[in-house]
Amino acid sequence: MPKIDLTAIEQTNRTGYPAPFDADVAGRFGRRLAPATGLTDFGVSHVVLKPGAWSSQRHWHDGEDEFLVMLEGEAVLVEDDGPVALRPGDLAAFPKGVRNGHHLRNESDRDCAFVVFGGGVCTGGGYSDIDMLFTAEGKYVHKDGSPYD
Amino acid sequence: MPKIDLTAIEQTNRTGYPAPFDADVAGRFGRRLAPATGLTDFGVSHVVLKPGAWSSQRHWHDGEDEFLVMLEGEAVLVEDDGPVALRPGDLAAFPKGVRNGHHLRNESDRDCAFVVFGGGVCTGGGYSDIDMLFTAEGKYVHKDGSPYD
Repeated sequence: MPKIDLTAIEQTNRTGYPAPFDADVAGRFGRRLAPATGLTDFGVSHVVLKPGAWSSQRHWHDGEDEFLVMLEGEAVLVEDDGPVALRPGDLAAFPKGVRNGHHLRNESDRDCAFVVFGGGVCTGGGYSDIDMLFTAEGKYVHKDGSPYD
Repeated sequence: MPKIDLTAIEQTNRTGYPAPFDADVAGRFGRRLAPATGLTDFGVSHVVLKPGAWSSQRHWHDGEDEFLVMLEGEAVLVEDDGPVALRPGDLAAFPKGVRNGHHLRNESDRDCAFVVFGGGVCTGGGYSDIDMLFTAEGKYVHKDGSPYD
């Protein structure tokens, strides 16, 4: 059946972020739903944020649209313009190439959950608050292009 | 802000279905979110089903993956294998090319709502329960290829 049993899909808090930027996402537990369900036209992840966790460093994508559906609990969406609360049923769209970084923070005292969709082609992107970029190959580098060790 | 104000986006119950197949979706009110928010890498629609309404005729896509997130109320997902209830937070994936048609029916006494995502390229598709196909050009035809008048 197409209805998804989340418990059957691996959940992980792995991240490729270099230290110290990995600490902020240690409480982010994701499931990749597209490979698990046979979809190839776009990516879909189910994400649980523990209290205090961030969805990512505040970032944008140069080549990939993103769309987020809030499912449970409450998170704070942060962009250049400041914070906005997201509650179950709230929707948010992040067109590629808009260099106003975004992320979600769980500032509540219970878990929150969302699904996030990504399309397009990875051509790199950047981070608003830290000295880091990601490349088309998915590597994390300083803004001068030098690698993280 | 990327948080979507649904009230600012046109909602319509238009359908291109020929009679009598249009009647089942008369209580389906959709909003196209991707053009309204600047996304081009995939399609996103917010859909409200009035009591008794269907999301579509039971169909599949040959070239487009679909993914559904239930937001409010309750619907029944129907496939060849029978019905499954969908409630807020439930997720469902429909890989392209799987010729087991699906649709949602609102069999409850109040509105339900969901968001549905589509990617890939329209190469046509079919309907499980009626004498109809849709073509790569988005036209509705009989299964012998003859047009609806």
